[in-house]
Amino acid sequence: MPKTYKFFLFILFFSFVSAFSYSASSSPLLTKKQRFSVDNFQTTSGKIIPRVDIGWESYGELSANKDNVILIAHYYSGTSHAAGKYNATDTSNGYWDSIIGPGKAIDTNKYFVLSSDTLVNVNFKDPNVITTGPASINPLTRKPYGISFPLVNVRDFVNVQHALLESLDIKTLHAVAGPSMGAVQALEWASAYPSMVERVIAVVGYGELGMFQKAAFSNWAASIKLDPNWNDGDYYGKAEPINGMISSLRQTILAAYYNDFLQERFEDDANTNTSPKNSILADYTIDHWMQDAASARAKISDANHILYLSRAAETFRIGHGNSMREGIAPIQAKTLLIPATNDQLLPLTLSKNLYKEMKAQGKRVAYEEIEGPFGHLDGIVSIAQKSDVIKDFIETN
Amino acid sequence: MPKTYKFFLFILFFSFVSAFSYSASSSPLLTKKQRFSVDNFQTTSGKIIPRVDIGWESYGELSANKDNVILIAHYYSGTSHAAGKYNATDTSNGYWDSIIGPGKAIDTNKYFVLSSDTLVNVNFKDPNVITTGPASINPLTRKPYGISFPLVNVRDFVNVQHALLESLDIKTLHAVAGPSMGAVQALEWASAYPSMVERVIAVVGYGELGMFQKAAFSNWAASIKLDPNWNDGDYYGKAEPINGMISSLRQTILAAYYNDFLQERFEDDANTNTSPKNSILADYTIDHWMQDAASARAKISDANHILYLSRAAETFRIGHGNSMREGIAPIQAKTLLIPATNDQLLPLTLSKNLYKEMKAQGKRVAYEEIEGPFGHLDGIVSIAQKSDVIKDFIETN
Repeated sequence: MPKTYKFFLFILFFSFVSAFSYSASSSPLLTKKQRFSVDNFQTTSGKIIPRVDIGWESYGELSANKDNVILIAHYYSGTSHAAGKYNATDTSNGYWDSIIGPGKAIDTNKYFVLSSDTLVNVNFKDPNVITTGPASINPLTRKPYGISFPLVNVRDFVNVQHALLESLDIKTLHAVAGPSMGAVQALEWASAYPSMVERVIAVVGYGELGMFQKAAFSNWAASIKLDPNWNDGDYYGKAEPINGMISSLRQTILAAYYNDFLQERFEDDANTNTSPKNSILADYTIDHWMQDAASARAKISDANHILYLSRAAETFRIGHGNSMREGIAPIQAKTLLIPATNDQLLPLTLSKNLYKEMKAQGKRVAYEEIEGPFGHLDGIVSIAQKSDVIKDFIETN
Repeated sequence: MPKTYKFFLFILFFSFVSAFSYSASSSPLLTKKQRFSVDNFQTTSGKIIPRVDIGWESYGELSANKDNVILIAHYYSGTSHAAGKYNATDTSNGYWDSIIGPGKAIDTNKYFVLSSDTLVNVNFKDPNVITTGPASINPLTRKPYGISFPLVNVRDFVNVQHALLESLDIKTLHAVAGPSMGAVQALEWASAYPSMVERVIAVVGYGELGMFQKAAFSNWAASIKLDPNWNDGDYYGKAEPINGMISSLRQTILAAYYNDFLQERFEDDANTNTSPKNSILADYTIDHWMQDAASARAKISDANHILYLSRAAETFRIGHGNSMREGIAPIQAKTLLIPATNDQLLPLTLSKNLYKEMKAQGKRVAYEEIEGPFGHLDGIVSIAQKSDVIKDFIETN
């Protein structure tokens, strides 16, 4: 592997925890976090949330007739910060900065790109995140909801975004795009609001999980529930289930990787670090690295939010009906599926099944694989590889 | 899927926790657990264990000149119980009963098949397991060792087996075979005692892990270490880190599976069980199933033993030298590698790398893949698929 690539990986490593960052242009794309609120939001299960607040941000200018909107939906541990910086001095950019910006695949000189935090966003304590979930104060009781907060699903995420768009008087989406759980939201948009959505770009996503993946999400959740401090979700103002969260997040972090990157990053360690052979208390560098990454994420996360978001990811099926087939039926958007070849968390078969079912129903669907050493994370880290494909998909009918 | 196969999967499910069982013959192969002890066992790291006790069992008869011995080494969560029953009324057989027995691939009418529990066997509280590790009483202090027990590696496991063979005056092995961590022991045998080992059958094994797999083992260990009851390994006579063990074992259990089996087993559940959509306290049947399986295993396991065994699996490199190449060099045995096509825990690349390196050194090595819906577990559940290959390998030179 060439030295420059090694250096790139090194840099990447240090920017991993908060966001994958690149400094592609000399004048940074600046954005600011805004708040959107809606009262008495009704969930798809029929529950009322007295007040929903979510954060959002945008890049580019909304056209006079509001027909140039591209919505970006974020991944499981992501936020609305898809591109640019909040301040020129920020050390990292939004996670898809390599394809969103002036002259980039998603060209902010042409499009008004909008992105919002989901409900039950895991990064509840991140000062740049605005979300509503179990850790939020219930205005009726003035205490955190805890697990009295209603379960929400991906359709609910979409419906909050829909309300945000309504508040901006936006009636059509030139495209909806996102990686991983963002892809899932993009697909759900096309199923739920078919006449509003012209294009879907679903990167490392799925129409429905297999049982193996559901079981993995269940394990992430179990590690939290097994921490006595979780206390059935009632830990606000008490000791939080930090250890359970770290155990959970270690699994989440590892699942997103592929061996090739880890091998490259830690191979010297494998040959020189003999400490794991000397004491059960000693660890490998890779062990230490995962512990640090998980601990840093645990600090800004809320345990109940992780459980709620995991459940939403686990139970998602496009359209939320009786079958994937049924959920695909209403779709009018042309769709681009971009799975990652080495994705072990959401293996290729998931996107292939979705592609096959969409084709069978005569939908306009294209399929492109991202190659790369990162696995699931290639949907973020290596997305620029598909810049031309994405640009072409967005700019043609 | 045909109904009979469905029924087979159903039966398999219920026999999963303790062992995969089959009742292939009408008169059961009976065996009994025996104890082997060695004083002042020296580990490869130079430490002395005052007394090592391990359990072993055998099937078939030792020939007069003791040249018909086949040694079976067990997998991570396994025991010496590779075949047969301890009592005619036992409801399950040893894990490889489909290939070990009279007239089977490993024919107990011809061979004396021997199998032993490893050091630091995880099933410390299983009444049929005899092992020595952190939970054992240190004869010098009359208290459990805890983490004062020296770290042991796969070479140490092999050396204990070597001492057992010496006690029986056995000087050559017609073959050494095993699945997963058993494969690893078989390979280590051929590297450590090349003149003793004529054949190696390494099923779903590896010569050395990749960083992704090491990280997975680290996560299993971390879930235990993050349980405050672990208390740096000092929990004997106090509350044990049961929750950490369950969290760890859920990961271990899932990692051994492939989606196809789980999908078949739980697919009806996916369509009918709506409870996970109603409360964060509700679970999927698959979630419940993993929790039950992990809890049952936690009851007979010792947390420190899990940590010690994970470390041995994680740090293994054939020959325990500076490279896999170096460890392969001394091997004289002809070797059969049998990875499983759908193995996600130890992916095919591991066996392919090993095959390639052995070929490059001019070793006699063959490669055969097991197909199946179980993933890593196909090395146990579907092993009979390779009966002819194994029989031929054993009975020719």
